[in-house]
Amino acid sequence: MKQNYSYFTHLECPKCKEEYDGSTATHLCVCGSPLLARYDLQRLKEHWSIEQLKTREPTLWRYHEVLPVLSPANRVSLGEGMTPLVHMETLGKTYELPNLYMKDEGLLPTGSFKARGAAVGVSKAKEVGVQTLAMPTNGNAGAAWALYASRAGIQAHIVMPLQTPEITKREVIAAGGTLSLIDGLIHDAGHAVSEASKEHGWYNVSTLKEPYRIEGKKTMGYEIFEQYGYHLPDVILYPTGGGVGLIGIYKAFLELKTLGWIPNDATLPRLVAVQSETCAPIVKAYEQRKTHAEVWENAETIAFGINVPKAIGDFLVLEAIYETNGCALAVTDDELLAEQKQVAEREGNWICPEGGATFAAAKKLRQSGWIQEDEHVLCLNTGMGIKYPDTVTYHDEDYLKHSITIKH
Amino acid sequence: MKQNYSYFTHLECPKCKEEYDGSTATHLCVCGSPLLARYDLQRLKEHWSIEQLKTREPTLWRYHEVLPVLSPANRVSLGEGMTPLVHMETLGKTYELPNLYMKDEGLLPTGSFKARGAAVGVSKAKEVGVQTLAMPTNGNAGAAWALYASRAGIQAHIVMPLQTPEITKREVIAAGGTLSLIDGLIHDAGHAVSEASKEHGWYNVSTLKEPYRIEGKKTMGYEIFEQYGYHLPDVILYPTGGGVGLIGIYKAFLELKTLGWIPNDATLPRLVAVQSETCAPIVKAYEQRKTHAEVWENAETIAFGINVPKAIGDFLVLEAIYETNGCALAVTDDELLAEQKQVAEREGNWICPEGGATFAAAKKLRQSGWIQEDEHVLCLNTGMGIKYPDTVTYHDEDYLKHSITIKH
Repeated sequence: MKQNYSYFTHLECPKCKEEYDGSTATHLCVCGSPLLARYDLQRLKEHWSIEQLKTREPTLWRYHEVLPVLSPANRVSLGEGMTPLVHMETLGKTYELPNLYMKDEGLLPTGSFKARGAAVGVSKAKEVGVQTLAMPTNGNAGAAWALYASRAGIQAHIVMPLQTPEITKREVIAAGGTLSLIDGLIHDAGHAVSEASKEHGWYNVSTLKEPYRIEGKKTMGYEIFEQYGYHLPDVILYPTGGGVGLIGIYKAFLELKTLGWIPNDATLPRLVAVQSETCAPIVKAYEQRKTHAEVWENAETIAFGINVPKAIGDFLVLEAIYETNGCALAVTDDELLAEQKQVAEREGNWICPEGGATFAAAKKLRQSGWIQEDEHVLCLNTGMGIKYPDTVTYHDEDYLKHSITIKH
Repeated sequence: MKQNYSYFTHLECPKCKEEYDGSTATHLCVCGSPLLARYDLQRLKEHWSIEQLKTREPTLWRYHEVLPVLSPANRVSLGEGMTPLVHMETLGKTYELPNLYMKDEGLLPTGSFKARGAAVGVSKAKEVGVQTLAMPTNGNAGAAWALYASRAGIQAHIVMPLQTPEITKREVIAAGGTLSLIDGLIHDAGHAVSEASKEHGWYNVSTLKEPYRIEGKKTMGYEIFEQYGYHLPDVILYPTGGGVGLIGIYKAFLELKTLGWIPNDATLPRLVAVQSETCAPIVKAYEQRKTHAEVWENAETIAFGINVPKAIGDFLVLEAIYETNGCALAVTDDELLAEQKQVAEREGNWICPEGGATFAAAKKLRQSGWIQEDEHVLCLNTGMGIKYPDTVTYHDEDYLKHSITIKH
């Protein structure tokens, strides 16, 4: 039997189970829910083995069978994927977590985990014939989509809150994308994109209104499985804004069970959604054991990527947490900045504030006993610290004064 | 026979052939020349095969047999290496170079190729018991060494010209390194480091005064060999400041010949040293067929990483060029910035200005006929564009005016 490049079959609504064939540009279900990509995993199971994976190139395209892009010719790739799994031995000692690891999603094109969603999303957009796309963003996603779109020859309209980190604005401009600023938050940008897309016929790639970004993000889950030697850690902490990464990782684990690579009765890692105390809609919903989150008023945090007052996929995030016996936890900006600093000074990696939040959460959960000392704990760092220069204070004059030629 | 983790045997002077055992902190040869690491490649040849490489982790440590770190316990790693080889199909068409590729060294910890030298250099420093190191830098190297040093528990003193890109200063501070600024160029910083190191007994890791950085850099050559399917391209263009990368790549190719992985009579890629017209000591020496370069007066270029008026390894760079029938070529700042822009707009990758210089050079060499249309051409991008935000012009007000909600 012929092996397919992709085993993608259709899009399915996780709420009402309606199906869509995915051969044309598709957004939400008629019921308003995001759609999820489905594959013929039963047939794939007969063809695919872990052994085959071992000699494939270290990019997310090594999982092409479970990605929605049907033809390799439509692949828009900058070599993204297989980011390092790094042992945080020194920091782990201070937390009493000898098995503390970080997956460093800063080492992707554009310096953030958003490259995964952009690579797969733009490739699929190219495959279904999209010529112009539009997206609201807190920065990193817009930068990634603008750059991948330029590689695909697709025009990109990117709308950001005025307060978005400046480097991501420059990335959109470098890419030749069309940048617009909104004096508001991401949902205001989302509204503008929605209106403009309707008016101009643009392909709206807002979080989860476009069903393939999550497929790019889920490759984190497949990589974690490979990097842990075909096992999984006990706890995974994820900085949660729109939550697509967390939904994607959970989706990957379920697919791995269906493929038989994880035993069907295996306990999955407890998934932890980490938010900022000043923007914590998922945490609030989790504490009240709700299945949907409410809009968070007056959201504001230095970890701009998780400044999302209302996520369209909130119910999927909460489901992933409940089903894995995970939790949702908020940390303060001071706490996440303190751990960001610790990671740089003790482990040599200048991570982003959102990444810092996961370490602050790991520390707290260890202190409370929710995480045991012998557990394998994975923090997801979603981007490079150099994209957030202001998290380090710097003035030339302070370092000219202490010139090395002066004895000290 | 037992397989070693490393087949490192000693350090050798490429000028006077004096040998050093490398078990303690070692710098230049007594004759003033940099030292090169040597391995028992004949014995290694019996133990090592390409086949073994195929299932190793995608980091530069896959080549541990030809790295100087004797024990894996001394490895200071953030997961660096196996950076993507990206086909530049669209840009290649405009150059009439269908086989134009880029190796993207921006996808390394700290966002530049300097991570390779830092990973191996700091690991070896740890192995020989170094507690404090000092280095002059044009920015990226200092950032990388400060961060890897913090991971190793080594104190780092980093000295930079005042004009160094600000993000790299912040990286040093984030790492908890000691930053000093000099109102001068990199050789002034080098002088300060030299004096202070003598005074305080610090380990001076200036370019090529420390013999192991080049071993990290040479892994680029091994990766190129693997990524081209165990062959090599026809031409490799490298932005050349201190030139360690170019020397390293050449060293790798010679080692691959000794290992028998490249036929002994194979033609090596023509190595091209690319410099800025306003700082081109290697180009000047090449044009005069000299074996050493003179100090370049009043050096200044936006591609700060190649603003090196005098390189201690100049004779090794020139040897690599002459031996491979390569060349050295200068481009203007306008030319390199124009190609940096082209790469972002057509290929979706915001590269650094130094990387842009290699594309400008490829274009010129194709136009002059020095590169033929059917040749396989590889440009080395040494860092991320986001480390050079000012290469893109940006003002908030320009993008608020063109808000997406206004019809256009």
